[in-house]
Amino acid sequence: MNSESSEFDLIARLRGLAASHPRVPVGIGDDCAVVSGGAGSRWLVAADMLLEGRHFEISTATPRLIGRKALAVNLSDIAAMAGKPVAAFVTVAHRRGYGMEFAEEVHQGLAELAGEFWVAVAGGDTNVWEGPVVISVSLLGDVVGTGAVTRSGARPGDIVFVTGELGGSLPSGRHLRFMPRVREAAWLHEAVDLHAMIDISDGLLADLGHICEESGVGAVLRSRDIPIADDGNGEKLTLENALSDGEDFELAFCVSPTDAAKLREAPPEGVALFEIGSIVEGNAVTVLDEAHQPLSFRSAGWQHRW
Amino acid sequence: MNSESSEFDLIARLRGLAASHPRVPVGIGDDCAVVSGGAGSRWLVAADMLLEGRHFEISTATPRLIGRKALAVNLSDIAAMAGKPVAAFVTVAHRRGYGMEFAEEVHQGLAELAGEFWVAVAGGDTNVWEGPVVISVSLLGDVVGTGAVTRSGARPGDIVFVTGELGGSLPSGRHLRFMPRVREAAWLHEAVDLHAMIDISDGLLADLGHICEESGVGAVLRSRDIPIADDGNGEKLTLENALSDGEDFELAFCVSPTDAAKLREAPPEGVALFEIGSIVEGNAVTVLDEAHQPLSFRSAGWQHRW
Repeated sequence: MNSESSEFDLIARLRGLAASHPRVPVGIGDDCAVVSGGAGSRWLVAADMLLEGRHFEISTATPRLIGRKALAVNLSDIAAMAGKPVAAFVTVAHRRGYGMEFAEEVHQGLAELAGEFWVAVAGGDTNVWEGPVVISVSLLGDVVGTGAVTRSGARPGDIVFVTGELGGSLPSGRHLRFMPRVREAAWLHEAVDLHAMIDISDGLLADLGHICEESGVGAVLRSRDIPIADDGNGEKLTLENALSDGEDFELAFCVSPTDAAKLREAPPEGVALFEIGSIVEGNAVTVLDEAHQPLSFRSAGWQHRW
Repeated sequence: MNSESSEFDLIARLRGLAASHPRVPVGIGDDCAVVSGGAGSRWLVAADMLLEGRHFEISTATPRLIGRKALAVNLSDIAAMAGKPVAAFVTVAHRRGYGMEFAEEVHQGLAELAGEFWVAVAGGDTNVWEGPVVISVSLLGDVVGTGAVTRSGARPGDIVFVTGELGGSLPSGRHLRFMPRVREAAWLHEAVDLHAMIDISDGLLADLGHICEESGVGAVLRSRDIPIADDGNGEKLTLENALSDGEDFELAFCVSPTDAAKLREAPPEGVALFEIGSIVEGNAVTVLDEAHQPLSFRSAGWQHRW
């Protein structure tokens, strides 16, 4: 959900403040934390904040879509760990000038998406002020099946997949309407052994970079296999959009070659899987062109990230 | 954490949106929600948001105290259910103009208080923008002992206690420095059968009103027994301050007369308990003066609340 380098610096420094804790087997640095409770139980917890003027604009988003997105980005984080969302907590600052109907519509949009995934809206804190609209959602989820899928299990030789076309989510408005890949993740988690998974919020290269960093590996992608979205008006975007734009909220995941073959033979219903490259030794994400030469990009926006 | 009537209206209307859910035995309307997990485990979850200019002012609070308060108000909610805090999730919007050192100090203040209660800071979302500072904390806690103490178990005949002097928390700055009553609540939960408990954030009358509403009872308080704080400069505040000021973050709780006697005979160490009245049939909170006549207050600020 972040895009500016001052934030990345701050986040890196704050990570140093977070001491390890026996009740938190997976902490800061993954899509969700894992918190352990009594009787061997484990919870996934995601927490994301949306800011007016930053993650949505009143001029282009309806209040229902704003509330919907506030939950959707957190559902996407639960999906990235292949979990089952259970209960959401919503803290919000509403702008007085937008009126009470606007505020209610925000919560209605959130409640509708919650209903689609049978998630309880179980608590929170509602404020009205003169400032911009701020919505923060914390989402608790069950760890499912063989366990939470983290970012740290990718291995050299793994095949990298993504669950949809990438790029242009913000200008096309897809960031307000995407359906979080909760069901697709659950299907994959049952069908194969997911070594590592992430939702693409910062852009494919950045987020695959997070997997590489946490797993201690590199990745090589084939430019011709990267699925590029259109701009919402039927025009294809560029490879650079697909690699670097944020807020796609598709999943990127890594499986063994055997499991990749299994997915080719028996693909999931209702979602297209794109095989875009493989995991290698090293620590860099490289994109090869049709002549197998590494591409370089004019935009260096993403390059400082790994 | 709320003080304006438009918020109370909005909150009441939003409560109607929250459908009941089998995984949420206690939802909106208590200090924390209770969420049930696998293997019969149960979690407490609190979520509160602090807004610059509303819950703190940069002119009177250091960044460490701001971060501290963001966690403290949530610890107080866990205390109100007699729970044990475990893991905090922090979503924050920092104001760019205050600089990175300010932002780090906020998180340092939060981390220090977390350390005092052995709470993990396990995740969150960090943003930098041009708007006011916003910090939202979600706090997970264990249900302890015989279960979570709710607002709904008060019975006619119960004795009402508070854990400290009340009033003037905002002007004196106590709202930034209070120590959440987590340990005291744990002691009480072990020593007696707590029928109902709440932390005093909206003011004693308002919060005792919440207990009465959820329990379907009334309460009668004795004015001479209400402990009134001083203003921080040695001057006593008024009874009205003690009854109506917010953000004291003391606990108000109800126990049977037998347990009240037990607490009189063997009081907890390190905290003063004040016995302020009793629970009765009905639905109103009444304060009696020395001649046993009901008091009326010039300020009607709190009267619309029950």
